[in-house]
Amino acid sequence: MRIALYPGSFDPIHNGHLDVIERAAHLCERVVVAVAQNIGKEALFSIEERVDLIEEATRHLDSVEVAAFEGLLVDFYARIGADAVVRGLRAVSDFEYEFQMALMNRQLSPEFETIFLMPSQEHIFLSSRMVKEIARLGGEIGPFVPEPVASALLARLRS
Amino acid sequence: MRIALYPGSFDPIHNGHLDVIERAAHLCERVVVAVAQNIGKEALFSIEERVDLIEEATRHLDSVEVAAFEGLLVDFYARIGADAVVRGLRAVSDFEYEFQMALMNRQLSPEFETIFLMPSQEHIFLSSRMVKEIARLGGEIGPFVPEPVASALLARLRS
Amino acid sequence: MRIALYPGSFDPIHNGHLDVIERAAHLCERVVVAVAQNIGKEALFSIEERVDLIEEATRHLDSVEVAAFEGLLVDFYARIGADAVVRGLRAVSDFEYEFQMALMNRQLSPEFETIFLMPSQEHIFLSSRMVKEIARLGGEIGPFVPEPVASALLARLRS
Amino acid sequence: MRIALYPGSFDPIHNGHLDVIERAAHLCERVVVAVAQNIGKEALFSIEERVDLIEEATRHLDSVEVAAFEGLLVDFYARIGADAVVRGLRAVSDFEYEFQMALMNRQLSPEFETIFLMPSQEHIFLSSRMVKEIARLGGEIGPFVPEPVASALLARLRS
Amino acid sequence: MRIALYPGSFDPIHNGHLDVIERAAHLCERVVVAVAQNIGKEALFSIEERVDLIEEATRHLDSVEVAAFEGLLVDFYARIGADAVVRGLRAVSDFEYEFQMALMNRQLSPEFETIFLMPSQEHIFLSSRMVKEIARLGGEIGPFVPEPVASALLARLRS
Amino acid sequence: MRIALYPGSFDPIHNGHLDVIERAAHLCERVVVAVAQNIGKEALFSIEERVDLIEEATRHLDSVEVAAFEGLLVDFYARIGADAVVRGLRAVSDFEYEFQMALMNRQLSPEFETIFLMPSQEHIFLSSRMVKEIARLGGEIGPFVPEPVASALLARLRS
Repeated sequence: MRIALYPGSFDPIHNGHLDVIERAAHLCERVVVAVAQNIGKEALFSIEERVDLIEEATRHLDSVEVAAFEGLLVDFYARIGADAVVRGLRAVSDFEYEFQMALMNRQLSPEFETIFLMPSQEHIFLSSRMVKEIARLGGEIGPFVPEPVASALLARLRS
Repeated sequence: MRIALYPGSFDPIHNGHLDVIERAAHLCERVVVAVAQNIGKEALFSIEERVDLIEEATRHLDSVEVAAFEGLLVDFYARIGADAVVRGLRAVSDFEYEFQMALMNRQLSPEFETIFLMPSQEHIFLSSRMVKEIARLGGEIGPFVPEPVASALLARLRS
Repeated sequence: MRIALYPGSFDPIHNGHLDVIERAAHLCERVVVAVAQNIGKEALFSIEERVDLIEEATRHLDSVEVAAFEGLLVDFYARIGADAVVRGLRAVSDFEYEFQMALMNRQLSPEFETIFLMPSQEHIFLSSRMVKEIARLGGEIGPFVPEPVASALLARLRS
Repeated sequence: MRIALYPGSFDPIHNGHLDVIERAAHLCERVVVAVAQNIGKEALFSIEERVDLIEEATRHLDSVEVAAFEGLLVDFYARIGADAVVRGLRAVSDFEYEFQMALMNRQLSPEFETIFLMPSQEHIFLSSRMVKEIARLGGEIGPFVPEPVASALLARLRS
Repeated sequence: MRIALYPGSFDPIHNGHLDVIERAAHLCERVVVAVAQNIGKEALFSIEERVDLIEEATRHLDSVEVAAFEGLLVDFYARIGADAVVRGLRAVSDFEYEFQMALMNRQLSPEFETIFLMPSQEHIFLSSRMVKEIARLGGEIGPFVPEPVASALLARLRS
Repeated sequence: MRIALYPGSFDPIHNGHLDVIERAAHLCERVVVAVAQNIGKEALFSIEERVDLIEEATRHLDSVEVAAFEGLLVDFYARIGADAVVRGLRAVSDFEYEFQMALMNRQLSPEFETIFLMPSQEHIFLSSRMVKEIARLGGEIGPFVPEPVASALLARLRS
């Protein structure tokens, strides 16, 4: 597998995402982390900030690059010549949703392939929403996100 | 079974809905598709538009009629003398929700009956939300909705 | 819907099954309860006994008949001219299995239709296996099975 | 177990909540029902109203007290010296979410313990959201909530 | 909560079980681990061996005692005056089964109470069946079971 | 990804398996299909027969080879220098089990990686057990298995 595409909203990236990226980087020649532009007004970080945070968090991984994308995932997939989309699996409800997305995308574009990776056990229940909620309530988010994300979250919520 | 009631928001109707309607029409003398008035501001189509699109899509089915309804489903059920509500099942999360709805309705009205039908395999993961998202992003929605719905969606999103 | 087919192993019939039969009888002109011959050596009751117990338990329902069947369900379905198979839904794992069965049967015979009914809330977690285990351990099974089944279970386990 | 903490938004308390509180009161010396301050603008009742309704509904239970709380649950837990958080389980999707919350809280504070109780079967599918929706549509909510909650709901929706 | 009853087949006890026992011991005055006699011929260890292994593994916990039991759990529950049964939750399928068991037992005996505890994250997917399979295939089982169980498993499988 | 390992019992291989193999062959340089020796007495086909049937069914795929294996999967994985195990996902219950297996294997060998692929929608509910049951009952298995498997199944069941 040469090019893996890892799409998401990453608002912000957390250690479960990073774990999936590292696993993908180990299996593929190149990993493109694709940050979805259009996730609505409730995003805490702008698209540029989200891209920057991922770039900082993946600096140690040569084969990883980060890009913002708009429009259909299948179009971006075709444009970069991806061999597969990578998704991390967490819990059952997740699995249902991922299944649905993968099947829809395959109907839009038959050669679309999705591979699911399993993050380490300690990240199975992690989500960006929970991390933001904990930060908002003054909790310690150090164990859940890369250091620059922790700083950015605190700065954002303090302002 | 004489009268089946198929309630939903149908914003808009898609091929999975149509599949369920056709199956119900095959089993029952009359199928009433009941479009819920009150689904909030985030509806893409008005109640009249949603009713019209279903009527167009079910023109080939003599025993199907379409109606808007407000208020409790159990009251509408009693008013039309329905023998059962029909619901299409898709995925597990769906099933949970349907179960909950059916049990609540039965507590409100003991003679309330729900039958679940299974759409064809290619529609199991279809949803109105996904269809709208694909249309919004410029994707091809032909395989997922009846033709008049595809036109209406494109017209609406272009405006 | 004229003819509903309700297949199962019914080893033995319990109140959840009976609830589904009564609901089906209310919706359809005729309900055929089909007892599967081939469920292996671990059956507690013979096929004749299982048929007899269902007949006793459904004596009050004129439109219900009971039959043993061997071979493929889709063949029996065609032979009696059924309009749909009826299945009771209980829990999630159940739902998965029922889905799989229904899809396989539809691939074997496209006109095969399955409708799922929901038993009353107090029967949602009932199963023949649990009833037998409770009886074996000397527990009170009165709340879970029709009276003749309770007697038959006790007689069988005492011998 | 001396002190159990039962957190939630309780907007408003329903019979499933009350069932869990009664079970917890039976197992523990003291039950603190903790009403979350921060559940967003979509709350139907203010924090004071929600606390009052729970107090009325639990008047017959000497060992139960009600408090509003803000901030992290683990901090409130430590402040009152709780031995465990109590949560009622309903359906699968619920279970997933509860699992995630419990694991996150344990990572924030290792001594954090969660015990799950099962409400009576007739409350397994009850939710505040559904109760409010039924009330809004003019349905009978008597079977689902304590009497003072029913009155408060009707008064609120009539205004 | 004074007396907690923790029933199971424990063939053999593993670290996930032990984790649940330790949590229960922390919450209750006394924990009775009840080993089910009747789990069929496929048990690897005899009832006496299973009791012995649990006793060894829980020697550091003063408030824990181990007993074999036959018959209905609700009868044993009544006999020892238990306040609640304790069960560890692992995955969704588990949850379904536990729900069913708890509801059946409550119908057999209304005062029967079940509390569910969550083992540490690293034990969430552990099962006796998997441990035995790994041991059989020559794998390292040290991380999954207490030391005496590891020795007993190896001795048993070597013979 | 250079070497993917696809383990299973394959008793016998069906079109869902074949779909996963083809997808893996598209993503990796080499796919090793590993047939588990030890699946107990209830296997319909011997290990040699199962290997032969897979070889016939994958003759058109140059990069696929088939091997029998005994013992721990992690040991076989290390021996052939695999980069990842490939598993096909079907339904929720499946997912749970696969999760458990993947986590256990990772604890036995930290570098063990599992990637999950999604078969085409029409294979999502296919299983070897169901195929055998249909064949046993005289049903048409042509749509579910490669031709040589269909012949072998009929020959085996006729004898």
